[in-house]
Amino acid sequence: MRRSLISWSIFLVQLMMLLPGLTIASLESKRSQTYIIHMDHSQKPDHFSNHESWHQHTVKSLSSACPEDKETFLYSYTHVMHGFSAKLTSCQLMELEKSPAHLSTYKESFGKMFTTHTPRFLGLNRGSGIWPTASYGKDVIIGVFDTGIWPESESFNDNGMSNVPSRWKGKCENGTAFSPSLCNNKLIGARSFSKGLQAAGLNISTEFDFDSARDFEGHGTHTSSTAAGNYVYGASHFGYAKGVAKGIAPRAHLAMYKVLWTSDTFASASTDILAGMDQAISDGVDIMSLSIGLEHTPLFEDVIAIASLSAIEKGIIVVCAAGNEGPSSSTIYNGAPWIMTVAAGTMDRSYIATLELGNGMAFEGTSYFPTSVSITNRPLYYGSNDTKTAGCSFLNRDEVKGKVVLCDDSNLDLNGQMNVVASAGAYGAIFLTESLFLDPEDYSIPGVLLHTRYAKAIKEYATTGNNTIVKSMRFVLTKTGTGPAPQVAYFSSRGPDPINPSVLKPDILAPGVDVLAAVRPDVPFMEAGKYDLVTDYALYSGTSMATPHIAGVAALVKAVHRNWSPAAIRSAMMTTSTNADNAYGTIRDQWNGLTATPLEFGAGHVDPNLAMDPGLVYDMGPQDYIDFLCGLGYTAKQMSAVLRTSKWSCENRTDINYPSFIAYFANQTTSWSEKHFTRTVTNVGDHASTYQAALKVPDGMIVKVEPNIMRFTNKYEEQKFVLSIQVDKDSPKVSYGYLEWIDEHNHVVSSPIVVIRD
Amino acid sequence: MRRSLISWSIFLVQLMMLLPGLTIASLESKRSQTYIIHMDHSQKPDHFSNHESWHQHTVKSLSSACPEDKETFLYSYTHVMHGFSAKLTSCQLMELEKSPAHLSTYKESFGKMFTTHTPRFLGLNRGSGIWPTASYGKDVIIGVFDTGIWPESESFNDNGMSNVPSRWKGKCENGTAFSPSLCNNKLIGARSFSKGLQAAGLNISTEFDFDSARDFEGHGTHTSSTAAGNYVYGASHFGYAKGVAKGIAPRAHLAMYKVLWTSDTFASASTDILAGMDQAISDGVDIMSLSIGLEHTPLFEDVIAIASLSAIEKGIIVVCAAGNEGPSSSTIYNGAPWIMTVAAGTMDRSYIATLELGNGMAFEGTSYFPTSVSITNRPLYYGSNDTKTAGCSFLNRDEVKGKVVLCDDSNLDLNGQMNVVASAGAYGAIFLTESLFLDPEDYSIPGVLLHTRYAKAIKEYATTGNNTIVKSMRFVLTKTGTGPAPQVAYFSSRGPDPINPSVLKPDILAPGVDVLAAVRPDVPFMEAGKYDLVTDYALYSGTSMATPHIAGVAALVKAVHRNWSPAAIRSAMMTTSTNADNAYGTIRDQWNGLTATPLEFGAGHVDPNLAMDPGLVYDMGPQDYIDFLCGLGYTAKQMSAVLRTSKWSCENRTDINYPSFIAYFANQTTSWSEKHFTRTVTNVGDHASTYQAALKVPDGMIVKVEPNIMRFTNKYEEQKFVLSIQVDKDSPKVSYGYLEWIDEHNHVVSSPIVVIRD
Repeated sequence: MRRSLISWSIFLVQLMMLLPGLTIASLESKRSQTYIIHMDHSQKPDHFSNHESWHQHTVKSLSSACPEDKETFLYSYTHVMHGFSAKLTSCQLMELEKSPAHLSTYKESFGKMFTTHTPRFLGLNRGSGIWPTASYGKDVIIGVFDTGIWPESESFNDNGMSNVPSRWKGKCENGTAFSPSLCNNKLIGARSFSKGLQAAGLNISTEFDFDSARDFEGHGTHTSSTAAGNYVYGASHFGYAKGVAKGIAPRAHLAMYKVLWTSDTFASASTDILAGMDQAISDGVDIMSLSIGLEHTPLFEDVIAIASLSAIEKGIIVVCAAGNEGPSSSTIYNGAPWIMTVAAGTMDRSYIATLELGNGMAFEGTSYFPTSVSITNRPLYYGSNDTKTAGCSFLNRDEVKGKVVLCDDSNLDLNGQMNVVASAGAYGAIFLTESLFLDPEDYSIPGVLLHTRYAKAIKEYATTGNNTIVKSMRFVLTKTGTGPAPQVAYFSSRGPDPINPSVLKPDILAPGVDVLAAVRPDVPFMEAGKYDLVTDYALYSGTSMATPHIAGVAALVKAVHRNWSPAAIRSAMMTTSTNADNAYGTIRDQWNGLTATPLEFGAGHVDPNLAMDPGLVYDMGPQDYIDFLCGLGYTAKQMSAVLRTSKWSCENRTDINYPSFIAYFANQTTSWSEKHFTRTVTNVGDHASTYQAALKVPDGMIVKVEPNIMRFTNKYEEQKFVLSIQVDKDSPKVSYGYLEWIDEHNHVVSSPIVVIRD
Repeated sequence: MRRSLISWSIFLVQLMMLLPGLTIASLESKRSQTYIIHMDHSQKPDHFSNHESWHQHTVKSLSSACPEDKETFLYSYTHVMHGFSAKLTSCQLMELEKSPAHLSTYKESFGKMFTTHTPRFLGLNRGSGIWPTASYGKDVIIGVFDTGIWPESESFNDNGMSNVPSRWKGKCENGTAFSPSLCNNKLIGARSFSKGLQAAGLNISTEFDFDSARDFEGHGTHTSSTAAGNYVYGASHFGYAKGVAKGIAPRAHLAMYKVLWTSDTFASASTDILAGMDQAISDGVDIMSLSIGLEHTPLFEDVIAIASLSAIEKGIIVVCAAGNEGPSSSTIYNGAPWIMTVAAGTMDRSYIATLELGNGMAFEGTSYFPTSVSITNRPLYYGSNDTKTAGCSFLNRDEVKGKVVLCDDSNLDLNGQMNVVASAGAYGAIFLTESLFLDPEDYSIPGVLLHTRYAKAIKEYATTGNNTIVKSMRFVLTKTGTGPAPQVAYFSSRGPDPINPSVLKPDILAPGVDVLAAVRPDVPFMEAGKYDLVTDYALYSGTSMATPHIAGVAALVKAVHRNWSPAAIRSAMMTTSTNADNAYGTIRDQWNGLTATPLEFGAGHVDPNLAMDPGLVYDMGPQDYIDFLCGLGYTAKQMSAVLRTSKWSCENRTDINYPSFIAYFANQTTSWSEKHFTRTVTNVGDHASTYQAALKVPDGMIVKVEPNIMRFTNKYEEQKFVLSIQVDKDSPKVSYGYLEWIDEHNHVVSSPIVVIRD
């Protein structure tokens, strides 16, 4: 049970599949359901002192029309929208929707969760660059929306932290196994939100979760410590990845908003997420980090998108996971153009075991076996004459006792093989496989994954007679500087964005594979032999893990440029990110080893030191997003749902001022077809600069920039340019290029260009 | 086999008991034996171009008198003495001793070996104090005399190291599994010396040792990395003591002189030690660190003492282990008054497991079980009705399977109990014991040592019925700040010095219990379950481990005060050391928990930051040691043996200028008896200072200082004082006090006083 929960947290689980709305509803009365009701606050009668009393009265007053129906009021929302959530019958809802103050109704939906050398891999160091310049994120507050936090983790000690900023209005709430005294100058806020889930019939018992901000599962502890964990010496995953664990912004403050729960199974309700974000805006966070996604819906029904826009209007940066549904395309979550959408990449660190056979052949393979075992001169067992034993789908206990079993590539089910080998009581195992996707917690006996390219040599030796041996096997070895890295994680969701394909998503790539960070220390992480093993720090993978990296970098940039808008900070991070890996090639796709594209890595892999000084930014403000929404052809009601106001005006601009480009050419018949993109860049460099456009485009595409030289004399000076893309009917179906603006001060302002022909 | 070797290395093994000279001799011809021959170099005939050719000719020429006897020449010695070693028959020896150039003969003897948070525990930090002031020991060269070194250990990387000093004449010798290319700016020398051992009939095979400076056993790697290991992040002993491993002088250079070998069993020959020290003087080391002791002999037969004096004459500081023969008194090794003799203390760090029983009672005990196992709700087994099973001297396999076994305090043999529990296949174990001395490598199953003070409560619960359980057990927990610490390790050899009781020994206390440092990474450290476990860093205990701490501190002080004599540096370290523990009491004895005395901890626990600025030093030069020897009543031949010259003059001073005091009053009949000690102190402070004597003496002892105020106006100004001690026949048999010279610049120059009445 525990096992499945944990592996769920590490890789994506389709929560909606495990926990469909209907199942939840069926636990309770079939007649009532939870809704979020968006209200027009200009219609609040004056005799209500505040919105909440008006909202509550509104719900209570429904009893006259539906006298037999009980109503349950959940939350009143102030910042993310004017509105409330409540559990209502269809009679109550119909009555409510008659009110002239009613703007829109959203059915409750349920979220999914997407799951350290990282600072060094990102080029962060004490000597120079953004860390010292940003004072390691001092005074910036990161709000993390997750499963809660384990406050006693060493990562949340407040040694060296500055005091809680005076502007902070948040607090640490009392609750099960949590008291305000657990907070300090690192963890400055901790709240939990579960009314929506409880209304859906889920029971929070201490057996399955803590009714407080305490982390039951470890996921929120992991993401929080990744974003802003303090320095911890000697952290490791059972000896793997040993070193100094620290968050990307180790001096930033943390506030936990627990909106993900473990009741029977994990769950997160949109009403609760909305309540958390509402509270975080009121508390005064600077950055929101959400490793959560709701189902794909248009923006006017996507409460995370709606709440994010309200946050961004207040200058708060919102960073969200892109999802773990790769390698399929069009699987992006959280693709609203005001959100920073994060893809997951690998790092230059490998977890290995070494193997030497009796004939002297030596190999290095993948392993996460959690103990520094040394195997010497053990018999090698290979049931080559039988497909079942050769592939380890069946083993005889007496035959494999004390031996190292070779499981060949005739069986693709690694997890199943590991279970068979472990239950047969073998001494160790070698798996021949092309896949490297056995989770760390599945290494229950000393096992190593070797690539099938070695299969022939190993099988040949294994069948030479009865005296074949494993001369040595060694575990708990970590190799750094491996490559090529980063690669786009096989599971990372890919673009285009299924909801708004006209904005290139994901935005950016950050480490999300085998990320070492703090976890809940008091529950078993895995089994090995007959024992359960626990750990303080563990390797997790997912876009959930990439997201807090970007939140941490955003905190650093924010610390350097306090007055920059969320769009400017995102632009700075995107235009300075890199599409090159440590082998000086283009970043590859972990799934197939081929060159990846901006549809997988967005603008590229984040480079925190460069992000501090981008030269130019593509800035945006609320009106830019209004104009973008205007361009989507939404109805007035849909517009007001997203904008949370009935007052807006479209300025009829067609282009959003995004720091990346995606162009669609549909049903092309003419020989050449052209698209134009207008952008405005702002000089944020300290000097007068002359920028020259440089284009990296493939054959079959003509791209022009007008003007292709821009001279800036003042800081914050703006200039416009137009990028035009021409393709003909012989152009490739999908192609990729880059626009770079390069000045004389080493600024390279890079934007990816994606062209898709239907 | 391996197990016994390793446990030998960790705690003291009486090598002479394991490997008596007779046994060795019997391996070879009974007729020839190895001798060190001390020669009068003034008698060298001019036609020999150098000493070595004269020495070799001398040995060859013996064939005329003893025509049937083969001779084997081993080493010619230049710096530690003028002389050589050779394997000779009694005929040859008799002939040789007739030569007028012959000064003395020493029979070959065989040595014994005495076996990280430490920097922080010693108050070393980057911000201030001796570390930055001494540039972390930059340019100082520490020669370590030990089992060799594992050059690939991360502790010996040379990141951040300065270049090899140009004065260095040492080298890295080729040999089995060792090549000069393995050296770098950290490890600048590596040599091995084994002719003496081989002459004794021991065979160096790769199965038992490497015929090179490579460390077979790990002991020398441990001591070297303790003295001057570079920074290594994430080092741990299977997860215990996690943190940044670094030596005490992380920027000092290291040179390994391998003189300890693992041939059949460990062994070290005096001829080899002497050859190593001779070479190290020639190479140019600044500090010698020896975790070795030869048998107790008078100074004129103690080749380590003789070689050390020659080193000290050249300004080299010699630091030696005091031995592991505590808690018996008069068990000090290496007590020559020119050697810094090091006792071992505990640290403020504990390795623990937690235990919670089914009735809610919770305990913390000692454990080094090497895996982060989590035990939950397992049956508790206690064979209370049977003494044998209750004390775990016998267990029934079927009865204990899957259970946690309680072994009560009826059995004192912890190691035996652990073996019984492990071989019976129990799930875990609880040992009730007053002893905490189960070695880390003996924890082969999840076991915890609990103090017998909990025995009653635990046994009561264990006998309440059949459903008793262990609710939880957790391992791999490290607690820092525990106390009181330091304590004198139970095994640390204690004073008075059996050879020269008139000098108070040991000199100083340094961490020597559960010291984390690098070890040989490719051989199993221990077994757990059915697997062998390896580790890069391990916890070792012994005065062997305390010694390199003091060598490292001496390197730091030397880096700050390049021109200070070895005696001045020792004085600075001794007079600033502390006799207080972290509970603000006097340092205690780990053996019995009682207050320890200067006979156990010498001047006290080293304080590196204070040692940098002692205010006053008790300096000494060669003539001081000559006068000391004169006072011992040695014959001229014995004098010349120690002094390696026939020219010296006694100045008839009775007192050696030692920074500590020990007074013996024998056969006291008169009512009061008095002793006087004359000392000279040198002002090494930068300011004019007035020192006032403060005396801390117990009842029954009258101590006076004359003068009791000393005014210094110039740096390096010297002043004399006389300390007089009076006791009467009713005074205690042994008493302890302190003389402190205190000035207005916060200098406290403290010396222990020990008074013994027979």
